[in-house]
Amino acid sequence: MHTAGELSLIEAIRGRLPPAGPRVHLAIGDDAAVVHGRPVSVTSMDAVVEGVHFELGEGRHSYSDVGFKALASALSDIAAMGVEPGEAYLTLGVPRGTAQRDALAVADGAMEIALAAGVSLVGGDVVSSPALSVCVTVVGWCESASVPIYRSGALAGDLVGVTGALGGAAAGVALMKGAVRMDSSAAQADGDAAQMDGGAARAALGRARRPTPRLSEGRALAGAGARAMIDLSDGLATDAAHIGRASGVTLEIDLALLPLHQGAERAASALGVPAWRLAATGGEDYELCVCVAPAERSRVERALAAAGGAGITWIGEALPASGAPGARFTIDGRILQLEGFEHRW
Amino acid sequence: MHTAGELSLIEAIRGRLPPAGPRVHLAIGDDAAVVHGRPVSVTSMDAVVEGVHFELGEGRHSYSDVGFKALASALSDIAAMGVEPGEAYLTLGVPRGTAQRDALAVADGAMEIALAAGVSLVGGDVVSSPALSVCVTVVGWCESASVPIYRSGALAGDLVGVTGALGGAAAGVALMKGAVRMDSSAAQADGDAAQMDGGAARAALGRARRPTPRLSEGRALAGAGARAMIDLSDGLATDAAHIGRASGVTLEIDLALLPLHQGAERAASALGVPAWRLAATGGEDYELCVCVAPAERSRVERALAAAGGAGITWIGEALPASGAPGARFTIDGRILQLEGFEHRW
Repeated sequence: MHTAGELSLIEAIRGRLPPAGPRVHLAIGDDAAVVHGRPVSVTSMDAVVEGVHFELGEGRHSYSDVGFKALASALSDIAAMGVEPGEAYLTLGVPRGTAQRDALAVADGAMEIALAAGVSLVGGDVVSSPALSVCVTVVGWCESASVPIYRSGALAGDLVGVTGALGGAAAGVALMKGAVRMDSSAAQADGDAAQMDGGAARAALGRARRPTPRLSEGRALAGAGARAMIDLSDGLATDAAHIGRASGVTLEIDLALLPLHQGAERAASALGVPAWRLAATGGEDYELCVCVAPAERSRVERALAAAGGAGITWIGEALPASGAPGARFTIDGRILQLEGFEHRW
Repeated sequence: MHTAGELSLIEAIRGRLPPAGPRVHLAIGDDAAVVHGRPVSVTSMDAVVEGVHFELGEGRHSYSDVGFKALASALSDIAAMGVEPGEAYLTLGVPRGTAQRDALAVADGAMEIALAAGVSLVGGDVVSSPALSVCVTVVGWCESASVPIYRSGALAGDLVGVTGALGGAAAGVALMKGAVRMDSSAAQADGDAAQMDGGAARAALGRARRPTPRLSEGRALAGAGARAMIDLSDGLATDAAHIGRASGVTLEIDLALLPLHQGAERAASALGVPAWRLAATGGEDYELCVCVAPAERSRVERALAAAGGAGITWIGEALPASGAPGARFTIDGRILQLEGFEHRW
């Protein structure tokens, strides 16, 4: 059920959509979207809410960042299954009094990442809501149920790897909240732990505002024989444990090996925590954590190099479960208890 | 990204889910759900938000009503396409401090209608949110893109029908808001326009709390040759115009012919409006509005009788568009301008 304003916003979004892909028979404009599928659908749903996952405003998130981030986080789940995304559905929760151009900017941000990912935006809804929110459903497709990479496939002895670098989104959040400042002067204030050089700061802010779902990397990893995979939305500390529990193994991860985003070290020092803690618990990096048979190590590295995106860093291995399966983290030979997602809004 | 409480709620919901249907390869518990599809998917997304689409509390909506209503409204879109629903995905926006049993009751309400509709609940998310909200995606399936009934297929000369009765949900809202009272005494206060007899009141409240998506009726109508169809979520005044515009015709509807829910007349009189106005603009009845070639009239009536659900009432016809296509409403020979959804929360 809709107000006239909501219906007019739906029409305005519809008018801005790029042409849908060839498998889309009917996009927005009827009771439901009609799509020619492939044999198996792989579907994920994700939501972002103002004040919980983002803050609007100067130096925080723009309206278009919000749409971009919402769809990027749902696409990241499809990336972690190693399949190709097809269509996206977007429901905007819009506070009364929001200017139509701002609501359209949310849709535009989603369209931007949809275009980049080759995804057709084909449906959704607009509702009133006390806080700006975006709920996204993404449908990926593949030829059989044996194609996706599940969390449950890791075997003892597997290598554990992560794509890209960690801690960047948490560093971006620290910048947005003012815990760290961007050093915009040419001479970097090396001695000031609360300053981050401009390049690193911009990269970290980009991570927090417009994350990159590792779609080509996910498909390359699936094609190179990855046995288990998950995307790092809640942080490695939480997400690696999901693989361990689903697979009945213990992922043992050496925190000293974590690949650090260029902004992570400075942000961590400003927050008074070790950089590996920010990297392991920061969350929202949307990198992939993957388990691979040791024999496939170089095949995986070659496949990722060919995919032309993020590389992989080997950070640990899967062990037979000792006690409850999950993940175990070590630093300098000590075992640590870690819980994910400490540096959220 | 999740808090520990959100992850624990997801696990608790997962533990309560009934077994998924045979086409579901993997439900909740990985990055995405994996489902064996059929050739064409028909997908709709819908959301309900506290204070906008429902109010919690004694005499208003219960937590389980909220889950039921959210999924029912999305299923109604699939009903209006005339196809079979397959899976549902549910994202709960839960205010901090909500008791886990209340959040679980929302999921339970959705499971109740999912079971009744033969739909597998296979995924979704849980996020923090300032107001309780439920965002639902439902995927239906069919064998080809020519199976669904679109809004755009009506031809001039078609009969316009609606299933069931209208105005019940608006009467229920009037009861919940106290504009009308339920007469619980044995002797009905016939003279008091602000009282509604118990049976009618309970039926009206049921409409507002737990609407019935017309799934079997939608498939029966599709099978009997319906040319255009829409579900009445925003109200006939708005929704009939969608068919007219999409089809390039004018639906001319005689408001005196609208089938009235048993609670509509009394609620309308308490609100000081004619019953037909409540029926046409009340919204959320989730009946189907359908266009049918005159030659198929008795075939449609037989198919609906065989489906064993709501019957159909013929309320008008499709005319060649006079001016802008859409819908035109008449009462006692006068033409009225009507806008949908006047009796919302």
